[in-house]
Amino acid sequence: MLLADPILLEQSADLLENVRRVRPLVHCMTNRVTINDCANIILAAGGSPIMAEDEREVEEIVAAAGALVINLGILSETIFPSMLKAGRAAKRLGVPVILDPVGCGASKLRDDCCRQYIDEIHPDIVRGNMSEIKALAGMTSSTRGVDAGIDDAVTLDNAHQMSPLVTDLAKKLGTVVSATAAVDIISDGNRTAFVANGHPMLCDVTGTGCMASALTGACAGAGDAFTAATACLILMGLAGEMAQEAVQAEGRGIGTFRIRHLDYIYTIQREDILERGKVYESR
Amino acid sequence: MLLADPILLEQSADLLENVRRVRPLVHCMTNRVTINDCANIILAAGGSPIMAEDEREVEEIVAAAGALVINLGILSETIFPSMLKAGRAAKRLGVPVILDPVGCGASKLRDDCCRQYIDEIHPDIVRGNMSEIKALAGMTSSTRGVDAGIDDAVTLDNAHQMSPLVTDLAKKLGTVVSATAAVDIISDGNRTAFVANGHPMLCDVTGTGCMASALTGACAGAGDAFTAATACLILMGLAGEMAQEAVQAEGRGIGTFRIRHLDYIYTIQREDILERGKVYESR
Amino acid sequence: MLLADPILLEQSADLLENVRRVRPLVHCMTNRVTINDCANIILAAGGSPIMAEDEREVEEIVAAAGALVINLGILSETIFPSMLKAGRAAKRLGVPVILDPVGCGASKLRDDCCRQYIDEIHPDIVRGNMSEIKALAGMTSSTRGVDAGIDDAVTLDNAHQMSPLVTDLAKKLGTVVSATAAVDIISDGNRTAFVANGHPMLCDVTGTGCMASALTGACAGAGDAFTAATACLILMGLAGEMAQEAVQAEGRGIGTFRIRHLDYIYTIQREDILERGKVYESR
Repeated sequence: MLLADPILLEQSADLLENVRRVRPLVHCMTNRVTINDCANIILAAGGSPIMAEDEREVEEIVAAAGALVINLGILSETIFPSMLKAGRAAKRLGVPVILDPVGCGASKLRDDCCRQYIDEIHPDIVRGNMSEIKALAGMTSSTRGVDAGIDDAVTLDNAHQMSPLVTDLAKKLGTVVSATAAVDIISDGNRTAFVANGHPMLCDVTGTGCMASALTGACAGAGDAFTAATACLILMGLAGEMAQEAVQAEGRGIGTFRIRHLDYIYTIQREDILERGKVYESR
Repeated sequence: MLLADPILLEQSADLLENVRRVRPLVHCMTNRVTINDCANIILAAGGSPIMAEDEREVEEIVAAAGALVINLGILSETIFPSMLKAGRAAKRLGVPVILDPVGCGASKLRDDCCRQYIDEIHPDIVRGNMSEIKALAGMTSSTRGVDAGIDDAVTLDNAHQMSPLVTDLAKKLGTVVSATAAVDIISDGNRTAFVANGHPMLCDVTGTGCMASALTGACAGAGDAFTAATACLILMGLAGEMAQEAVQAEGRGIGTFRIRHLDYIYTIQREDILERGKVYESR
Repeated sequence: MLLADPILLEQSADLLENVRRVRPLVHCMTNRVTINDCANIILAAGGSPIMAEDEREVEEIVAAAGALVINLGILSETIFPSMLKAGRAAKRLGVPVILDPVGCGASKLRDDCCRQYIDEIHPDIVRGNMSEIKALAGMTSSTRGVDAGIDDAVTLDNAHQMSPLVTDLAKKLGTVVSATAAVDIISDGNRTAFVANGHPMLCDVTGTGCMASALTGACAGAGDAFTAATACLILMGLAGEMAQEAVQAEGRGIGTFRIRHLDYIYTIQREDILERGKVYESR
């Protein structure tokens, strides 16, 4: 059974305020499809993004950062070694590493890179959609391309049955796993949280997954990994709900939805989080 | 003389509905200027984009796709061999290939790559602006940069004289040629269609050509190449007209135009296409 | 003391009209975070952007261009030699070169590339934020990442004390230096101008610096370097002010701000510049 978790909700609201106070520098190594959206969402939430990829500078850049976000969206022979180098430096320096295993399950190359990155770097948070997380756990998944498959839908009714997969993977990898779906599941292996904010229109915008990972980075620069992963998904989801309401009132479509989503990431206040955040624990 | 073609209009409306039903996976290898816009327009029309470029995975990715879109907008020494590899796999598997010869006529490198790609891969659809299509046909064109030259303007009055160039190129290459201008000309060598939807503001947004090619890919994943090329340009153009009307009513500029355009790609219904689509055949 | 400079204001308004008349082709070699925004702002102001990076074509592309914009935002081992090649061709042909030293001061690699580019190419305009300009001048700066540090704030009150740094660097490098801050300082070593248009929300959008450099390129394709640098910053800043007013009236956030900013770049008229432009000279 899922029960509301008002303490985690309040901690999440605190952490989001902290992002605006601390303005963490977030070093992102991300794909070029959504790199602009990632930078803008970090800024909108109060962080400061820096995108650097050249092997000759990543160690120096990550040393000044509050978090490192690695997104495997568009791989190439030069970027992956650079990502490993940045990751090693981050771990050495205690900078939290967030991995987004984009398209894990869609090609052997992506599978191999995901596993290698996890094995060598031990990221602090792995943030992917449910299909990617299933692929990572070695279970058959319906990954087709980079979007989540329909078999991987998580609802408040089945979240309870889906969560062991996430919890076990978190335990096995020794990391926080943040699996996004209609209901998101976040686990550090011991504790598991569920976030029910969001709206299906988020799936009609490219890169909302990448943006969630970038935003997780901003949050991880301002608090512990488990709360950061949770707080990020409350904010993403609630901004999506509010954006959909605005779009419906205005009679607009997906272009306007993207803009309103970023508007709300920028303007959402502590009270909005406390009033409308839907975070649960499992009992 | 140009005559309205209500049958092709209806087939186009059917095909666009089919995109939303089939949700074709569209593998795009495109330039980084407009890669985000290309992904978002595919999603807005009902398709599912995947951007993959690494030579080690493109064959695997294209095998799951409903169409492959190759955009020569920003060339590099690594991407072009990867594009050839993906193209060969697509043809072997019967996946339709759409080529966008961005900036053909603007540099020798681009000319050479366009010709080599056509010779080796035989794409199913070549979608370019009129200056690029002229350059491809070996005629002197006024290509200056990546935008169409003013000598290459096509109107309802001169479309008849401009169309043999397109028809002949289609015949010579054995492909559908989709040449965009104020009036678009689409030909498979036998049949030629003209689409008169659109608005000049589309030229003041970067990458509307790239987006048209990406969208052509989504359409080609849901119907035959000739109808796909036509349906795409009706949708692009009509969304442009409606966006301009909205922007004028709101007293806004080109930023809002981009957003409204994506809004309408997402919300346009079958009835809008049937009421306002302007497609002609030549008699 | 700063005094209004109505002559430079009028020259700036003339130059901005000239951009729309001449439609300069602007060859941009820029980072992929903001490449789409750079292309769109050039188009919105009336120019025509072309993004080309392959070493095999940059000389041919720049030969047709009215300006070359070099942005060191995301470096790689292949792009930098290409940037040097394009720069050499531009100088040979008399095409003005604009350098944006993104993140100068944030890593040794970036410092080295900036200095090498300046030494070898002698750009006509260097456009950076105050922290980058200070780093370039060899003074200790508070560069943290790619955003300007708070110690580097320029106001109407301290602009007078900050300007010698900019003027001296311009003299030393023999170039126009365009340093952006709350009050921008532009100098060619002899003449120094101050632009007080703008709004802090511009700092909450990624790449407004990159966009300013791209726009400076469009302006440099339509007038002399000093006036171009000045005119660009009046337009950027005034569009920011008007965007903020619109966003406040609409009760929106940073997503809407970006759109309105581009709207105003597109629609601002000569009269707006003359009425609301704030440009000063120092006496």
